[in-house]
Amino acid sequence: MQRYFINEYINETTKIIEITRNDYHHIKNVMRMKVKDKVYICTKEERTFIFEILLFQTDSVVLQMIEEVTKKVELDIEVTIALGLVRREKTEEVLRRITELGANEFVSVEMERSIVQLKNKSKQDHKLDRMRMIVKEASEQSHRTRLLEVLDVKTFKEFLNYAKQFDLCLYAYEESGRDDNYNLKKYLQEWKGKKLLVLIGPEGGISSKEVGLLNQNQFFSIGLGPRILRAETAPLYVMAAISYELELK
Amino acid sequence: MQRYFINEYINETTKIIEITRNDYHHIKNVMRMKVKDKVYICTKEERTFIFEILLFQTDSVVLQMIEEVTKKVELDIEVTIALGLVRREKTEEVLRRITELGANEFVSVEMERSIVQLKNKSKQDHKLDRMRMIVKEASEQSHRTRLLEVLDVKTFKEFLNYAKQFDLCLYAYEESGRDDNYNLKKYLQEWKGKKLLVLIGPEGGISSKEVGLLNQNQFFSIGLGPRILRAETAPLYVMAAISYELELK
Repeated sequence: MQRYFINEYINETTKIIEITRNDYHHIKNVMRMKVKDKVYICTKEERTFIFEILLFQTDSVVLQMIEEVTKKVELDIEVTIALGLVRREKTEEVLRRITELGANEFVSVEMERSIVQLKNKSKQDHKLDRMRMIVKEASEQSHRTRLLEVLDVKTFKEFLNYAKQFDLCLYAYEESGRDDNYNLKKYLQEWKGKKLLVLIGPEGGISSKEVGLLNQNQFFSIGLGPRILRAETAPLYVMAAISYELELK
Repeated sequence: MQRYFINEYINETTKIIEITRNDYHHIKNVMRMKVKDKVYICTKEERTFIFEILLFQTDSVVLQMIEEVTKKVELDIEVTIALGLVRREKTEEVLRRITELGANEFVSVEMERSIVQLKNKSKQDHKLDRMRMIVKEASEQSHRTRLLEVLDVKTFKEFLNYAKQFDLCLYAYEESGRDDNYNLKKYLQEWKGKKLLVLIGPEGGISSKEVGLLNQNQFFSIGLGPRILRAETAPLYVMAAISYELELK
């Protein structure tokens, strides 16, 4: 169903609205809608209503309120995805998809086995602008009401420090998968916190030194099933699993 | 843990093996392993054993059997992902990821709202070869033991006919998501069949005519959460959800 963003003040007592100009043109000529067709009307205060087309006039369409849509589109928990520094194209693809899948925050982490190295700080700033644009586009497309935040790249030490503010810190570890340590489900079903951090290593994986530091810093390892996932697939698995567990019935 | 593929015949009674040449070099000089380090030894018959390094000799390393790894890497059910015909790059990306995520079969379907149209049959054959190469690479990388099958593109009519052999046919429908019809979990938890088919529409979605035909042909609609997923993200969500439900604890 098509959605239109309007500036009018609408609440549950609004019965009728009139749409003119561009949206009128879009409804009538682009979408070729007819009387009784329904649309979403989104207000500035992020409320969404279903309206039905009542009649077309010379340069406006009149719609009748059916009901408010009270559904939320955001996850109940805030998920930060941390990814070992990988090539720009891979990072951007992960970012686009985890935005669609409902993540709250993204950070790249310089890790021992990262093939990519950050050399030029200003280059990084440029990438950050570009990444934020990708997030904005993906948010609009997936109808999110909250923008994912892209953080500056962190060193592993900075990252461990940053992680202290989270209620639960997990890291996807290939060897966990091989040892049948598939406990992501247990965490998602039993944990009652709000802020979740999940670290995925770079292509080369997480080094044993890093694993030691993660374990010392209250990180828990999770496996993502018996097949080995690429660095850029694992974040999508994590986000889809979270949505499946928390949002589907 | 590193894995080595050997030609020797190994079974549960094998106590000791000796590794020479390239693998010896790799263990000693590349991985710099030490006595008591463990490795996976994979046999030609697709059995995998854990061995521990017993001692290094001048040009070989002797290992002692610890145990057989009986873990399977394939899903218990066979999942076919059908995707409305989209651009080649998008199709290839979906293929790469659903291979990692354990899908059994893939088919593109010509649908009303497909932006891409198939004009040249031989061009399509060429793409099929390329797609099978992508599957092979992704299978090796993710340590799968079964190759996903890529089928020829089907018309919608051919697809409906093909679908008759499946135990359960689902289609991801955007409007289902909006109506809180998030019942994928119910299907995965309650269904006891073997062959599952999931159709994802092209970028423009599934037309209402197609929805009617799907419903007439024993397809059930599922929603994939409250956010709108792109055509190329939805198959990854479905596969991750299946793995999460059936393989994680």
